[in-house]
Amino acid sequence: MEAIYLDNNASTQVDAEVVHAMLPFFLNQFGNPSSMHDSGAAASAAIKTARRQLQALTGAKFDHEIAFTSGGTESVNTAILSGLEMDPGRTEIVTSAVEHPAALTLCAHLEKTRGVKVHRIPVDHHGRLDLDAYRTALTHRVAIVSIMWANNETGTIFPVERLAEMAKQVGALFHADAVQAVGKQTMDLKSTAIDMLSLSAHKLHGPKGVGALYIKRDAPFEALVRGGHQERGRRAGTENTPGIVGLGKAAELALERMDEENKRVKSLRDRLERGLLERIPGTFVTGDPLARLSNTTNVAFDRIAGEAIQFVLNRHGIACSSGSACTSGSSVQSHVLTAMNIRQVTPLGAVRFSFSRYNRDEDVDRVLELIPGIVAQLRDGAAPVSRGQAK
Amino acid sequence: MEAIYLDNNASTQVDAEVVHAMLPFFLNQFGNPSSMHDSGAAASAAIKTARRQLQALTGAKFDHEIAFTSGGTESVNTAILSGLEMDPGRTEIVTSAVEHPAALTLCAHLEKTRGVKVHRIPVDHHGRLDLDAYRTALTHRVAIVSIMWANNETGTIFPVERLAEMAKQVGALFHADAVQAVGKQTMDLKSTAIDMLSLSAHKLHGPKGVGALYIKRDAPFEALVRGGHQERGRRAGTENTPGIVGLGKAAELALERMDEENKRVKSLRDRLERGLLERIPGTFVTGDPLARLSNTTNVAFDRIAGEAIQFVLNRHGIACSSGSACTSGSSVQSHVLTAMNIRQVTPLGAVRFSFSRYNRDEDVDRVLELIPGIVAQLRDGAAPVSRGQAK
Ligand SMILES: Cc1ncc(COP(=O)(O)O)c(C=O)c1O
Ligand SMILES: Cc1ncc(COP(=O)(O)O)c(C=O)c1O
Repeated sequence: MEAIYLDNNASTQVDAEVVHAMLPFFLNQFGNPSSMHDSGAAASAAIKTARRQLQALTGAKFDHEIAFTSGGTESVNTAILSGLEMDPGRTEIVTSAVEHPAALTLCAHLEKTRGVKVHRIPVDHHGRLDLDAYRTALTHRVAIVSIMWANNETGTIFPVERLAEMAKQVGALFHADAVQAVGKQTMDLKSTAIDMLSLSAHKLHGPKGVGALYIKRDAPFEALVRGGHQERGRRAGTENTPGIVGLGKAAELALERMDEENKRVKSLRDRLERGLLERIPGTFVTGDPLARLSNTTNVAFDRIAGEAIQFVLNRHGIACSSGSACTSGSSVQSHVLTAMNIRQVTPLGAVRFSFSRYNRDEDVDRVLELIPGIVAQLRDGAAPVSRGQAK
Repeated sequence: MEAIYLDNNASTQVDAEVVHAMLPFFLNQFGNPSSMHDSGAAASAAIKTARRQLQALTGAKFDHEIAFTSGGTESVNTAILSGLEMDPGRTEIVTSAVEHPAALTLCAHLEKTRGVKVHRIPVDHHGRLDLDAYRTALTHRVAIVSIMWANNETGTIFPVERLAEMAKQVGALFHADAVQAVGKQTMDLKSTAIDMLSLSAHKLHGPKGVGALYIKRDAPFEALVRGGHQERGRRAGTENTPGIVGLGKAAELALERMDEENKRVKSLRDRLERGLLERIPGTFVTGDPLARLSNTTNVAFDRIAGEAIQFVLNRHGIACSSGSACTSGSSVQSHVLTAMNIRQVTPLGAVRFSFSRYNRDEDVDRVLELIPGIVAQLRDGAAPVSRGQAK
């Protein structure tokens, strides 16, 4: 039985070309990029190349607008904390109810410890942001807006370019958490009002432990990690040369293949979705049907806990997710589905299937072959749960 | 001409066994360690193994006292900032004048922006900490002491165990920056009063971009990076599984080989030092002759800038350092030698040679063969610089 991996929004397989690009920086050009000898210079040059590769993928105007970090969470934290430092007269944060814990946990902490006011903009039943509530929250008291480009659980895409324009009008900084969007959506940051943008290599077939923060040239900025002069003082610490090289290569591959891959994963995803809806009564797909990542589907099955399906699929060698990876270790209900009020309809969570360049038709066949039986069995065995009853 | 690498305090070659241990986590067990499927569980188990390997190397009492981070700088920043949060009545930091920029830059920032008082304990001509000044600075106003175990430039070892006991007596937390000591010095943290300790994989033949912070079980602690529940809430962000596995393996190898390797690098280092002192007049070694890392020598040559020697050696394929790697990009004089008052004797900086398990007798032969000529030539060509004159 070959393993089938359909959990690419949690993390992705590193592309063999990426690993290949990284290896020399473990074993040969391992010098400290700050060192003045040839080994250091080679590492430093490789980082420069990676910066250009990220510039190309994001459409940044200047390569030095990219600062490398240890990943998405650090980037998001840095952006929000930096934004709060800029103007003592601005003490509010605007974010959404469906952000990743990287933003929400930090915001809750700031609310508690620093008396910061946090506006968590609600979403509707399809996961769409409430634009009226957003407009109302945007005042001259807002220091920074932090909103995700695409949701990790449902794939719903927010209109961040427009949201950034609106933030600009009240002088607030705008940070886009694009961890799920980079490599899947075309971007041209130079033509937007986005001030900062977070991304993470391991979501686009790069290595874990490396990410980047885009910081628009003239945007005010305060570092989170201080020390040496790396990354122009915006992120201290010896650079993760192999990781950065890997992220750069992953960015290059993602840019080259984006259109073709989006088409491919969309057709796999759509076939899975259609198949599930056709074969299994009481099934529905969450998220915005008109603005959704091509690779993601989040499916709820009436009367069955998403976790139960995930658990059984795992025994069949199929990896998927119920709730986002970062919260699934603790088995609380997804805050995203709760915000969408999906729990009123199906209180037991959903299953997320997220595709990548490595998925094949056979993966979809296999899931479609297995799930109807699994669902039937679980429904038979399941204690009857009435609609609307909390788990 | 084969390259000779004598800059192991800046960064080290990743051990081939370490790379070998990492590879499966890029290409096979790439699941998110928080995911509930087998791919996630495999990653999570590997992280647990690495935690134990670090526990063994540091002599921590519990494996969960180890929290993985992105490297030494992040660990040091986390420790100092966490320490400051603990007690509003304690607003002072004690550190030394010869710390790494990871501590000094952060402290200067805190001094400026938060009105924190920072005591920078001076050192003597041999780089030894002024214990009287330390004792005087230690009051009940001190929140945290952050002092290095071993100095990156001279290799001088500070008596951190004793310093930690003294800090404990006034109720201050003690953080040891052991980035240069871990893997080179035996440690038994459970029998010390050290509350936190920073380490970095790339200094012990592990990969860049990963490190750890030891946090004693009952020590108060505040995270720097917030988000998911990783590392028991002490460091959020998808874990760098391959990096952590690499650090664990590097720790295991370091522990196994420590005694033998220390003996070997010491004999190489001592032969280089003796050879230079014998062959070249006006040469002297900086740092504490009685308490120094076995792998490090920092040598000053009268009337010649360390940088000049480094530059010429690099043309011969030999990598070494003048000043520490993290500050050498910007060509300011070393704050460590300045603090030691070495500049009064030789104002032009020194050359650091730092050895590792990969160095061979031939490396020493080659340097001893080359340097006398280089020094003579530079001295001939050098504009006469009188002693004590600043560059
Ligand atoms: C939308 C979003 N933001 C932030 C993160 C955090 O990124 P990282 O896992 O690199 O810390 C994730 C991934 O888990 C995510 O999906
Ligand atoms: C003593 C000391 N502390 C901290 C650091 C910073 O560690 P890293 O390079 O992993 O950020 C270094 C290394 O440059 C160091 O030598």
